[in-house]
Amino acid sequence: MLDDKEWFTEVVDAAGSAFSLRVRRKLHEERSPYQTIAVYETEHFGNLMVIDGFTMLSSRENFLYHEMLAHPVLFTHPAPERVCIIGGGDCGTLREVLKHPEVTAATQIDIDERVTRIAETWFPELTASNQDPRANLLFDDGIRWIREAEAGSLDVIIIDSTDPVGPAEGLFTEEFYRHCLRALADGGLLVQQSESPLYHMDIIGGMRADLQAAGFADLRTLFFPQTIYPSGWWSATMARKDARIDGFRRADVDARRFDTTYYNADIHTASMAQPEFFRRRFQGDTTG
Amino acid sequence: MLDDKEWFTEVVDAAGSAFSLRVRRKLHEERSPYQTIAVYETEHFGNLMVIDGFTMLSSRENFLYHEMLAHPVLFTHPAPERVCIIGGGDCGTLREVLKHPEVTAATQIDIDERVTRIAETWFPELTASNQDPRANLLFDDGIRWIREAEAGSLDVIIIDSTDPVGPAEGLFTEEFYRHCLRALADGGLLVQQSESPLYHMDIIGGMRADLQAAGFADLRTLFFPQTIYPSGWWSATMARKDARIDGFRRADVDARRFDTTYYNADIHTASMAQPEFFRRRFQGDTTG
Repeated sequence: MLDDKEWFTEVVDAAGSAFSLRVRRKLHEERSPYQTIAVYETEHFGNLMVIDGFTMLSSRENFLYHEMLAHPVLFTHPAPERVCIIGGGDCGTLREVLKHPEVTAATQIDIDERVTRIAETWFPELTASNQDPRANLLFDDGIRWIREAEAGSLDVIIIDSTDPVGPAEGLFTEEFYRHCLRALADGGLLVQQSESPLYHMDIIGGMRADLQAAGFADLRTLFFPQTIYPSGWWSATMARKDARIDGFRRADVDARRFDTTYYNADIHTASMAQPEFFRRRFQGDTTG
Repeated sequence: MLDDKEWFTEVVDAAGSAFSLRVRRKLHEERSPYQTIAVYETEHFGNLMVIDGFTMLSSRENFLYHEMLAHPVLFTHPAPERVCIIGGGDCGTLREVLKHPEVTAATQIDIDERVTRIAETWFPELTASNQDPRANLLFDDGIRWIREAEAGSLDVIIIDSTDPVGPAEGLFTEEFYRHCLRALADGGLLVQQSESPLYHMDIIGGMRADLQAAGFADLRTLFFPQTIYPSGWWSATMARKDARIDGFRRADVDARRFDTTYYNADIHTASMAQPEFFRRRFQGDTTG
């Protein structure tokens, strides 16, 4: 029996599983206009951010998710200059994006400013690049922002959202993807976190179908470990506007002048390997 | 708070984490001469085997571990005829090994016959190949069996053990690896489960050092997801007796006449990609 005073537990009802971290104390909790945000000091995972009861990130292993959301898509684009991040209020993805010297403008649009303010206090390592002159932090509705974005004005769209229930639901729809497609310039790429390959094949399948229906020309789903997310195994799905996703700037990865903890060129290639059950399910899918 | 009547929970003290599965009922529990073995019926993971409080396998996702312990090493060896499995009493690894037509003899040596008998009852899909005439099930001390094995009598040794505490401790030692080396024929390969890349880099590092000290010529650590094991991310370490591990029989993987759920040729390659933190730690390690 895990005592709620000593442990934070996230239950995944539909999977009948739960993951828990031992906590020393609750550092912060507040109800923002959008959600309840809590921060715990854990025993061995550093600080833990929880939104509406769902684990968002821990100091110890957020590098996996943030690196895999930023670097594969940016090293796939030949010249990723104009990047936007929908969601991502903790600024961990923004930090990775800003490591790329090709990026000239990185706009983050999260609906909830409180997530960013809390990250500044409790996860300062993630917000350390926020003063970069290329960074533009907006606190607004990302769906509306994309709808109003100038056509062809973005090279890369990163959708770093919570699960497709509640506020983030509208980020997993064909209509939203159509607006993303329009906002992307030629050769543009989108990537979105796409849940667990073990628990959520229906979500991954639905997202892939919606991206194709919206007109994206090619897709790749990337796989990576993520201890604190349901099943410990996670994915992101990348889509290119108008051409096949064919390789990445491998020489630039090898010559990069910034540190990573998980990502490198071999991991990039490896993340695109499709498990056999996944390959079988999508084998008629000519867009990869 | 997770009620112990409704949930089975494994706590990892050193990591301050826990993983739980919702259970309908305990199907079986007994104290064998070596350990306490329990089987639960879970809500969404099928049946769950627990030994001394540690999750061993679930019906739902054991395919990941068993496929990754068997297929990469067997497709790396040019002609894997004589295979032994140390541990592996649930017979899931044996089942995968017997899918390979090249295998002429597969000997499984688990110290605890009760694990196999319980698997026959509660995990019959894993023991379905046990009547294969190539299979030989021994219930004995694997360390002694390897020590007494004829020199050069094995092509592949698979060490499918519990964690390196208690009964399995002697399977993670330089002395044991020396006996394995001697028992292997020219070109022989060993593979052993090597715990979590996030939690147990000390164990992986120690095992790699011991394998090298024992005289193995080359090493590769493989990475794969495993939801019910600590951190949800797991590894196995492969070692070749006398030559570099250089590629695998990719054409044979593609032409295989048996089903897999996770493994395929791309996954094989992907599993050997080293995360950046791992590469940095072992980069002076010329044996890969």
